[in-house]
Amino acid sequence: MVDSFTLLIAPWPAASAEPGGWQHTFRLVASDAPALAVTDAAASRGDGVFETFGVFNGHVQHVTSHLERFAESATALDLPMPNLAQFRAALAHAEGVLAGGAAAHTLRLVLSRGAHDGPTAWISVAPQPDFTADRRDGVSAVTLDRGYTLEACRSLPWLLLGAKTLSFAVNFAANREAVRRGASDAIFVTSDGYVLEAATATVIVRLGETYVTPVPDGSVLPGTTQRALFALFEAEGMRCELRSLTVDELRAADAAWLISSGRLMAPLRELDGVRVPVDAAATARFNAALQRPRD
Amino acid sequence: MVDSFTLLIAPWPAASAEPGGWQHTFRLVASDAPALAVTDAAASRGDGVFETFGVFNGHVQHVTSHLERFAESATALDLPMPNLAQFRAALAHAEGVLAGGAAAHTLRLVLSRGAHDGPTAWISVAPQPDFTADRRDGVSAVTLDRGYTLEACRSLPWLLLGAKTLSFAVNFAANREAVRRGASDAIFVTSDGYVLEAATATVIVRLGETYVTPVPDGSVLPGTTQRALFALFEAEGMRCELRSLTVDELRAADAAWLISSGRLMAPLRELDGVRVPVDAAATARFNAALQRPRD
Repeated sequence: MVDSFTLLIAPWPAASAEPGGWQHTFRLVASDAPALAVTDAAASRGDGVFETFGVFNGHVQHVTSHLERFAESATALDLPMPNLAQFRAALAHAEGVLAGGAAAHTLRLVLSRGAHDGPTAWISVAPQPDFTADRRDGVSAVTLDRGYTLEACRSLPWLLLGAKTLSFAVNFAANREAVRRGASDAIFVTSDGYVLEAATATVIVRLGETYVTPVPDGSVLPGTTQRALFALFEAEGMRCELRSLTVDELRAADAAWLISSGRLMAPLRELDGVRVPVDAAATARFNAALQRPRD
Repeated sequence: MVDSFTLLIAPWPAASAEPGGWQHTFRLVASDAPALAVTDAAASRGDGVFETFGVFNGHVQHVTSHLERFAESATALDLPMPNLAQFRAALAHAEGVLAGGAAAHTLRLVLSRGAHDGPTAWISVAPQPDFTADRRDGVSAVTLDRGYTLEACRSLPWLLLGAKTLSFAVNFAANREAVRRGASDAIFVTSDGYVLEAATATVIVRLGETYVTPVPDGSVLPGTTQRALFALFEAEGMRCELRSLTVDELRAADAAWLISSGRLMAPLRELDGVRVPVDAAATARFNAALQRPRD
């Protein structure tokens, strides 16, 4: 089994079928291999889109909803529409390289505007850090003002807030600011008091018997793992709402989580220095469900 | 003379001198050569900073002020402080590769957070497009709301608005929106009516006998070419002000320009579909001055 690798993809037009199979459009190289021209738009101006998939027990999770969001992000950036059959085949190829190893991995799929020759694409795979403590004991977060009103987030599409772009420096700057303030994660809020999303995760809160996440209306990324969780919650008869969520509601939540495809459900145990109730049993149960093979 | 190339730089700690010379830390490769791992932070998350230099008659312009801003951007992103002596030597090396050719070039200097082995850096050089018509006839722009108030821009450092980062997808999305609206350039304005900057340029307006540019107080990038121009204006006895500039003032300007290191002074001839007065003579005179060898 190879543990870390890059799979270079020669992107194919969206409408083309490739009856001979897609293998000839893939090329496996080492993770640290020089593979990209520095003039590629990904490297020169963060001009591309990505998805991060969890890989548990050798299975790439939630392929369909990730590929749907990938296509939506590409549209928001006026990128050529990706050939989803090709990308699906590339994900399967990457699964094959991992050859069923049990260790959890993170898989990143990228489509860049590329350079002179048109778009470029690749998959990179690496072992996950150990998220056991985060999932069990929870994480601490600080709220950081994203500078926008909720209305601005929704109505200014050139801000690309609903697209998962490679221009991600602000997200990492926010998490560094969180660390400076003694926490691990930043939760972006609007200047008029609404919760958006964490810098690298979706926010879910439980208010009474209802689970709430900020509605993905252009102001936040639609959460793929959040969507899977809401399906699990609803299957157990619990109520789920996608709506505007105020910071005051977050502070008064009966429980809250930061949700992402790799770390999965990390309970929020502290927000701006104040304890938040943690439901360890529910978290453990749903994290186990999220690690079973799923699409 | 080589016309397009990449100079890979192995970044050195800021404090180190290198008495044997820096040549062994540079490596010249073709522009389209695979040179970067896809896991480099530049390519995976736009996590780095850059500067774009004009090269006229074989001379890299405004080296000192670009390197000062480069260092400020690195600080804003908590990147390791670049060794400016090394980067200055790399710029001289690139000048040598161009070997005094007269055609105008654009030189891009990049420092990325890199990958496992620490930061990466490079220079890429390419011929400039022909900006003759833009400089002579002017360009058309539309105002686009950046979504922030002026106060938010100034007070939220994790938004990185005062740093020149590789997370530049929004700037290009704004220029695509401008093209959709029949113009060539987007000028970002605040939600409370102040002018920020163009997506890839600084704004200067002339109001009566005074030149005004939005003050770089964290809300906009400090303009290197704007700074050079203000020195030229002041040498001719004209008044220059760095201050907040309202959209109403821009609309009523006696003349306005978009300023960048490659295109230099492009007069604004139309804003949101309304004609703006163009001072062709002053523009031509200052553009000629900006193309003479300068630091």
